[in-house]
Amino acid sequence: MAEADGDDVVDVLILGAGSGGYACALRAAQLGLSVALVEQSKLGGTCLHVGCIPTKALLHAAEVADATREAETFGVLAKYDGVDAAGLRNYADGVVSRLFKGLTGLIKSRGIRVVEGRGTLTGPNQVTVEGPGGPGGPGGPGGTVTLTGRNVVLATGSAPRLLPGIEIDGTRVLTSDEALRLDRVPGSAIVLGGGVIGCEFASVWRSFGAEVTIVEALPRLLPPEDAASSAALERAFRKRGITARTGTSVTGVTVTSDDDGGGVVVTLSDDTEVRADVLLVAVGRVPRTEGLGYEEQGVTLDRGFVTTDDHCRTGVDGIWAVGDIVPGLQLAHRGFQQGIFVAEQIGGLSPRPIDERGIPRVTYSRPEVASVGLTEEQAKEEYGHDAVTTLTYDLAGNGKSQILRTQGFVKLVRQADGPVVGVHLVGERVGELIGEAQLVYGWEAHPDDVAPLVHAHPTQHEALGEAFLALAGKPLHTHS
Amino acid sequence: MAEADGDDVVDVLILGAGSGGYACALRAAQLGLSVALVEQSKLGGTCLHVGCIPTKALLHAAEVADATREAETFGVLAKYDGVDAAGLRNYADGVVSRLFKGLTGLIKSRGIRVVEGRGTLTGPNQVTVEGPGGPGGPGGPGGTVTLTGRNVVLATGSAPRLLPGIEIDGTRVLTSDEALRLDRVPGSAIVLGGGVIGCEFASVWRSFGAEVTIVEALPRLLPPEDAASSAALERAFRKRGITARTGTSVTGVTVTSDDDGGGVVVTLSDDTEVRADVLLVAVGRVPRTEGLGYEEQGVTLDRGFVTTDDHCRTGVDGIWAVGDIVPGLQLAHRGFQQGIFVAEQIGGLSPRPIDERGIPRVTYSRPEVASVGLTEEQAKEEYGHDAVTTLTYDLAGNGKSQILRTQGFVKLVRQADGPVVGVHLVGERVGELIGEAQLVYGWEAHPDDVAPLVHAHPTQHEALGEAFLALAGKPLHTHS
Repeated sequence: MAEADGDDVVDVLILGAGSGGYACALRAAQLGLSVALVEQSKLGGTCLHVGCIPTKALLHAAEVADATREAETFGVLAKYDGVDAAGLRNYADGVVSRLFKGLTGLIKSRGIRVVEGRGTLTGPNQVTVEGPGGPGGPGGPGGTVTLTGRNVVLATGSAPRLLPGIEIDGTRVLTSDEALRLDRVPGSAIVLGGGVIGCEFASVWRSFGAEVTIVEALPRLLPPEDAASSAALERAFRKRGITARTGTSVTGVTVTSDDDGGGVVVTLSDDTEVRADVLLVAVGRVPRTEGLGYEEQGVTLDRGFVTTDDHCRTGVDGIWAVGDIVPGLQLAHRGFQQGIFVAEQIGGLSPRPIDERGIPRVTYSRPEVASVGLTEEQAKEEYGHDAVTTLTYDLAGNGKSQILRTQGFVKLVRQADGPVVGVHLVGERVGELIGEAQLVYGWEAHPDDVAPLVHAHPTQHEALGEAFLALAGKPLHTHS
Repeated sequence: MAEADGDDVVDVLILGAGSGGYACALRAAQLGLSVALVEQSKLGGTCLHVGCIPTKALLHAAEVADATREAETFGVLAKYDGVDAAGLRNYADGVVSRLFKGLTGLIKSRGIRVVEGRGTLTGPNQVTVEGPGGPGGPGGPGGTVTLTGRNVVLATGSAPRLLPGIEIDGTRVLTSDEALRLDRVPGSAIVLGGGVIGCEFASVWRSFGAEVTIVEALPRLLPPEDAASSAALERAFRKRGITARTGTSVTGVTVTSDDDGGGVVVTLSDDTEVRADVLLVAVGRVPRTEGLGYEEQGVTLDRGFVTTDDHCRTGVDGIWAVGDIVPGLQLAHRGFQQGIFVAEQIGGLSPRPIDERGIPRVTYSRPEVASVGLTEEQAKEEYGHDAVTTLTYDLAGNGKSQILRTQGFVKLVRQADGPVVGVHLVGERVGELIGEAQLVYGWEAHPDDVAPLVHAHPTQHEALGEAFLALAGKPLHTHS
């Protein structure tokens, strides 16, 4: 066993090489700090390998399938012939591996030491890494190495949440990990959980021709979104033939044998049952914090999540936490931001704490749902019922959305006579509009700050321009 | 002949019902002014009927055709079977007619009087409208009516520029007007003019399978764009099999008879010739100002354009001009903005003059080219060669662009230590990113104003976020 020596003391020792971890490493190295990055799983983590990137590749393939199937309504003659599961995997793997290569090069170019293996916090500024050996691995096969950091950043990410009594068999009962690797498109699917992941897989499989039922215990899909967004998504899904059983929970799951047709029977709280080829369990993600020595070193956990202050400090001097293990939105770009934020603090800068509400959310289903800031309900709670105004602009009036044949809206939530505190979008491709929306939110802009600016015609983002014009009291293409 | 009576004196009398005219009417009515709108051609004008909207519908159909043809590379099995010209027209007409219906309802709901017919300026505050009669038309078949306005707004729009010696026959030799109505996809096409319109039609026809050659007299496609954007577009077009003959002009055009194969032979300044099924003449648009009484009433014209100050005033008291007849970018959203601007001045408000450079430009070809603010060259001219920095972020590092399989970049042009004064984008779908970019430009944001804001992952607009991070000196996914 190789012991830590002087060379192994780094300024920043990062446990986990996902979005939060590698962003922290990149920024720290840029600031001239020495950095070691312990790669628990592959560099890039969940987002790059089994999260954002491969799911969005699937969703784009789903868009291609829909475009092909609906081509005739646009005057294009085409025949849709189904999905080539191997081709689909090749495409997604190709995207992942190109980005992985780029990221690997970037980490290397910034002189970041990468140590492969499973790291455990064995002292307040010490991480012991076991196996797997090989290049980047510690001390040959089965070896361990102990690294010391003036600062330790916990960034061990998350894994799909499992439910007691529902066994993931990888064939009939899946989490998103297995769903991404499925060698076929199921003919029918039950999606347990109507959050982002559930809605995205439901959307993909429906585009590929499956019968899909979503079961969600809460009263609506995407519960954290504005109620209007949930309602619009449910309507759009219904039109697409996706069944959403909201306010319903699962009481039992039985996998039937292949002799018996092969599939899954799910019984629901209303005493009905649903049968399908596969069941996707998409009920959130749990932080990976167990058995890693966190509590032993004095780090406080709350239901598995690491408790931090608004500076990502754990309470143990020199130990920080970023990404999915910190309570809040489990999103890659939040991880990036927290990683950068911690690196800058360690580097002696004084970055402003991250406003969690300013972190944009996008569900990449068909249609997309995107938001930043407060929902109408949250704003009314915060500012009082009468101190909030809202403006909804229907995409029916937006030329580009008509061209795309998509329905949806832009909804602005405004603190009375104050800034816009929430922007909510539904419609195909509206996820890209959240770029403008997050600037408006981040800069605490009033409608009058945006209304005079010229939005390009015909784009989808001009719907934002129209909404701001209307909220400023001078609607253009809107009945006033 | 019906004479104007007291009832016919309105606050705002608008000659032309295109983007500039109708936006002026809508805003003026909203401000409580009485408005009459003389509809020279259909309400909505060029943009809605033979411009932005139908061309973007074609471009979306082209995207569908490409998606279908390339489906297999995304793991989707499909067969592309060509274009159904009638279906294509139905689709585009459907979009136009829905938007037209909405606009008509809006004009009606605001109490705007619409008079159909050809209007001529017959006094400094007087317009005489001839024919066609019928509903909205003046005084029955062949009748005329004279309207009086306390203010007259000239908004007569533009038409495709013709070239001496090249006769538009509507079958072999076309302008964009005829190209939109073509009952077939040409097997091959020569596009004369590498501006926005030329590049968009070249892109559409290529997507539909045609052999396309663009002939542009200037040294590059989209000459007003940043040189890097032109170069990237040319490269992308070359990969798509579109030939661009830049720095080349046309010396002769011969239409061959149907017996002779039927087509067009174009001879070029380098003594070569190109043959194709059709020739599209896309060399810009001329203002519609001739024979309308403008000069007779003292309005100054310069090469057909109406000369105005930065308040859209013509120099004749009470006569304003907006839209394509005013020198500058001939874009619908510029027309909207000018129309609103004039209405607000007439209504007694004091709106700020429009910054022409803040008007976003989008070419909706594949790939798209979009920009706002100054090119690198313009910025260097304005601020000095050493007082400008630029930052280019390649979309190869952008996950969503990789998923879309598109190439391109985000280029930021910054006044040294000052705000970002230009944003240039190339890539599929990047036109939507100009929404965020125009806020950055409009708010004179420094890189540090944008860099700390969280961009959603994986989106295309996070490439803007990365570019701002890099320009602020803290690149994330970029080699520094």
